[in-house]
Amino acid sequence: MRFDIITIFPGFFAGALDYGIPRRARAAGLVEFEAHDLRGFTHDRHKTVDDRPFGGGEGMVLKVEPIYDAFTSLGVAEKSMRDTAKETVILLSAQGRPFTQTVAQELAAMERVVMICGRYEGVDERVSEMLCDREISIGDYVLSGGELAAAVIVDAVVRLLPGALGNPDSSRFESFGAEDGGAAGPEDGPPRSTYGSGGLLDYPHYTRPAEFRGVSIPEPLLGGNHEAIRQWRRRMSLKKTLANRPDLLNKIAISEEDREILDELRFEPDTEA
Amino acid sequence: MRFDIITIFPGFFAGALDYGIPRRARAAGLVEFEAHDLRGFTHDRHKTVDDRPFGGGEGMVLKVEPIYDAFTSLGVAEKSMRDTAKETVILLSAQGRPFTQTVAQELAAMERVVMICGRYEGVDERVSEMLCDREISIGDYVLSGGELAAAVIVDAVVRLLPGALGNPDSSRFESFGAEDGGAAGPEDGPPRSTYGSGGLLDYPHYTRPAEFRGVSIPEPLLGGNHEAIRQWRRRMSLKKTLANRPDLLNKIAISEEDREILDELRFEPDTEA
Repeated sequence: MRFDIITIFPGFFAGALDYGIPRRARAAGLVEFEAHDLRGFTHDRHKTVDDRPFGGGEGMVLKVEPIYDAFTSLGVAEKSMRDTAKETVILLSAQGRPFTQTVAQELAAMERVVMICGRYEGVDERVSEMLCDREISIGDYVLSGGELAAAVIVDAVVRLLPGALGNPDSSRFESFGAEDGGAAGPEDGPPRSTYGSGGLLDYPHYTRPAEFRGVSIPEPLLGGNHEAIRQWRRRMSLKKTLANRPDLLNKIAISEEDREILDELRFEPDTEA
Repeated sequence: MRFDIITIFPGFFAGALDYGIPRRARAAGLVEFEAHDLRGFTHDRHKTVDDRPFGGGEGMVLKVEPIYDAFTSLGVAEKSMRDTAKETVILLSAQGRPFTQTVAQELAAMERVVMICGRYEGVDERVSEMLCDREISIGDYVLSGGELAAAVIVDAVVRLLPGALGNPDSSRFESFGAEDGGAAGPEDGPPRSTYGSGGLLDYPHYTRPAEFRGVSIPEPLLGGNHEAIRQWRRRMSLKKTLANRPDLLNKIAISEEDREILDELRFEPDTEA
């Protein structure tokens, strides 16, 4: 798999993609990244990439011409052929559809992902119309540009590639989303998520020492009773979800057992997990 | 303002925080960043930062001891004194509350923000209980760790600091959220957002040339009729929001004029902006 990133800050990605799983995946030949300097595709002395908006308003807009030329240099398939070629072109933008784990899974099935990083007030809309298949946003906050969003997408996608994680079983469990019903499964299975979730939030984890500065791990985890551990984990998952992400409870199937636990939790004085 | 980041990958931040607005804000003395190497606070030969989870399951959990020691070295105020000291401690985690522009504004009022980056399957829950004021997630996707999330938060917060943006007027317009009712205001004002939004999505931007490879800018932008431009921008804002983020339409106040436009747009064959 290959990622091409068009950006005015190609050096931005040196740190972000050179650690952990993206680094290991590249070393293993599973993935290639390349950042392309947009200013290399300008033709004036000042290497101008932006200009004032038509129709008035403050701020600068990234021009279509240099982006078009940078894009053309990559030899990407025509829009109508991209599905067949397993290629996709993304504009990172606040106006995009939300990036979710489901989108990460779609992208992980591609051979090639091209990302165009927005900057300044915006990007000439013809970039999206003429070149891109999708416009994606990573969240409801204002960033300086699309570079961090591109790095987030690379990280989320690369770890789904077969062989990218050290443990071959891990991606199956870590890539859970709403479709598998949540963090704590019906069996006493492995913990599911490192970071991010479409289902329930994960239950709390503890490791040694069992007591640290007077704070002990919860009692069920000390015993070897698997059913007690399962029940405690499910309850804690529900508790954390209720406290931090009550919106998720409307998106997943809730069992009768879960509903009883939730009713109890709502009457507890402290629902902060 | 100061950011301290506790991480196993301190080099990760070299690129991400060394470009654009974060770089300029640091150069101007508005903000300091420091990444602290968690492994520097281990006391064994292997610099062990993780261990197996209590209660079973796959994957490794970041230990509480090194994080506690790294945190203690920073001299942060006691939990009960943090509001007064304008300090806050964040665990980046999938189990956190969503990061939004409103949270970015809260953090921009702090003197100091400490961020602890989760990794692996999770972080010993005592880190959150004993040290942290908030647990934050940047989106519903699985990342390898909290480092990218920390960089996202730094970027979103720094650009809100007075003087961080080149243009003193820009942050006012770019930092819009649900509270100002959306991207396109009632006046023909400046464009509002570079990236990310809590209100309506931004309308499309165009800059020179007016025609590029046979694709022209929309007709209202060519004329000088401010009211026509305002109406076109509002309509395009609503159209893009309807296509990419219909959820936002339930979160903001919709005027009678907007409602009529939305009813029309819903009957257009192509609601993809």
